[in-house]
Amino acid sequence: MTPASDHLWMARALRLAEKGRYTTDPNPRVGCVLVKDGRVVGEGWHRRAGGPHAEIEALKMAGEAARGADCYVTLEPCCHHGRTPPCTEALIKAGISRVVAAMADPNPRVAGGGLKRLQADGIEAVCGVLETEAEALNRGFVSRHRRGRPWVTAKLAASLDGRTALASGESKWITSPQARADVHRLRAGSSAVLTGIGTVLADNPRLDARLGDTDVVQPLRVVVDSRLRMPPTARMLDLPGRTLIACCHPDPARRAALEAAGAEIWVAPIREGRVDLAALLEELARREVNEVLVEAGSTLNGALAAAGLVDEWVIYLAPCLLGDEGRGLFHLPGIGKMADRIGLRFVETRRIGPDLRIKVQPR
Amino acid sequence: MTPASDHLWMARALRLAEKGRYTTDPNPRVGCVLVKDGRVVGEGWHRRAGGPHAEIEALKMAGEAARGADCYVTLEPCCHHGRTPPCTEALIKAGISRVVAAMADPNPRVAGGGLKRLQADGIEAVCGVLETEAEALNRGFVSRHRRGRPWVTAKLAASLDGRTALASGESKWITSPQARADVHRLRAGSSAVLTGIGTVLADNPRLDARLGDTDVVQPLRVVVDSRLRMPPTARMLDLPGRTLIACCHPDPARRAALEAAGAEIWVAPIREGRVDLAALLEELARREVNEVLVEAGSTLNGALAAAGLVDEWVIYLAPCLLGDEGRGLFHLPGIGKMADRIGLRFVETRRIGPDLRIKVQPR
Repeated sequence: MTPASDHLWMARALRLAEKGRYTTDPNPRVGCVLVKDGRVVGEGWHRRAGGPHAEIEALKMAGEAARGADCYVTLEPCCHHGRTPPCTEALIKAGISRVVAAMADPNPRVAGGGLKRLQADGIEAVCGVLETEAEALNRGFVSRHRRGRPWVTAKLAASLDGRTALASGESKWITSPQARADVHRLRAGSSAVLTGIGTVLADNPRLDARLGDTDVVQPLRVVVDSRLRMPPTARMLDLPGRTLIACCHPDPARRAALEAAGAEIWVAPIREGRVDLAALLEELARREVNEVLVEAGSTLNGALAAAGLVDEWVIYLAPCLLGDEGRGLFHLPGIGKMADRIGLRFVETRRIGPDLRIKVQPR
Repeated sequence: MTPASDHLWMARALRLAEKGRYTTDPNPRVGCVLVKDGRVVGEGWHRRAGGPHAEIEALKMAGEAARGADCYVTLEPCCHHGRTPPCTEALIKAGISRVVAAMADPNPRVAGGGLKRLQADGIEAVCGVLETEAEALNRGFVSRHRRGRPWVTAKLAASLDGRTALASGESKWITSPQARADVHRLRAGSSAVLTGIGTVLADNPRLDARLGDTDVVQPLRVVVDSRLRMPPTARMLDLPGRTLIACCHPDPARRAALEAAGAEIWVAPIREGRVDLAALLEELARREVNEVLVEAGSTLNGALAAAGLVDEWVIYLAPCLLGDEGRGLFHLPGIGKMADRIGLRFVETRRIGPDLRIKVQPR
């Protein structure tokens, strides 16, 4: 049905889409290639929310050559007026003869409507070429629209014997500079970084993404802080970007001090006396958060794992031993027998400098 | 200096040597290829101690064709009367014109003397082709002769968060059948399996190597048992093969009961009130133990790691979480600050069924 060349052009469009990894948030990453007589006549990618969509960039490059061309685009063209006019109209006007999309837009305002709009105008429009790869590139955007919650990645770092710190609390630095640089890429690709108040009080982290010269959209910082213990002097409140604190019963004076320091306070639904984590994720989706990176201690990591709210764990194992008095990765008090263990599956293992990076997902 | 074909023939000899992996103990694994006019005229490998050496097998296959042939052998030919007559004399008598050895024999009774003996008879004899690979194949034999102690591999199995058992002690089965089959290959390639009395009392393990049809030389079972708490009813005492118990002050009645059950008792030097582990390894080397596989709990694994007595760790990580109340891999009470951690390096990572097998060595 689809010729082999469709896969090649779509792979090129996916590589273009990838260029927007750190900048399109909360929009999806999208690439587009226009092909006529086996040659690329235009290509482009979406750079940032509010800027032109990938199709518009490609049409601009092609000019008159777009007439009669095939359009390869990694996401179904939009047919609604969002921050920019609908791409379907621009493609029709430019005289594109065939549109190949990798995946339908999970946004219910589009959801197949873009392809239908093109077909109604007599343009051949197909969908599903390299669909798995396209969905993986925008798994957060897909999750937000389809499940009503972001894609959640939990990052952890430990010694080979599974310890994140010594009994004394000392934890700097278990992993290598290379692993820490890799974490900055994870942060930069995330819409939000989620941590617990325990980590804030112990480490006073920045949680910003530092990628050298790359102009990153800084992730929203989210602190789970049921009793609102966050100090208004916390370092993250002095940095560019926003901080959201999820709490249960905010003391008015503390709340006012934190708001004066630039934080936003969100009063969360309560579950077992604490912030309801599933409700927090739904709230983040409503705020257009596609991907959440969890960088927390064993309490929050344990609670998220036990609640089945994590989609992927990225664990950096350093080649060292800290011994069984060191701190563990996951606090999981409910596991009394082997049948209760949390089952996972390995999806990727890679060396990052001297460390090992392991990706696992729920089984 | 050495032609490229030397590497090809030596690689073939190494593959032959590999066939003896589970059967030659305490002898080294050795393979031999005889080549004349670019063709193999004879080849063989050492099968078991007391049986013919690889060179003799190859000469037998070649017959008269050995005259004028090149001999590729993975270990320097012996020149002493051991369980069998010296191979050097057989090679000379057969009219071999050139001998290429991968490595010199680390046994001080040979140690270059074999090659010298051949050269004295006018035979061209060189050494060092694929030496690294040859030494790796016999790293236990090399360690025993060069360092006076066996090569020590410690095998551990844990959940991804570094737990070998639940707080209750339940540990069956964290890893997969595939990982457990891999452990039987590790055991079969070892001269001895070392465990602690804690593991014997908790799990009553067999510690034998079960490889289906393969006729394995069963490893010596060694139990570190400072206070001689080993029950004479321990399951391993009913199995084929020998059991050695290393203790400090054996109670005569217990000793007699264990000896009556088939165990051998070795009274070890004492270090900090316990069996001196370095002295135990030296004793094992004196008993011709090339490779030791440690299958123990966190106490013995911690003590061996802290004493720097482990050459390689093989850690099977199962894709599951057990939580921070589970049992740890290494008891290392001395690590008070990050600078005291035990530094390692990753040497291999591989999937074994659903599990991950990680090999690390001291840095």
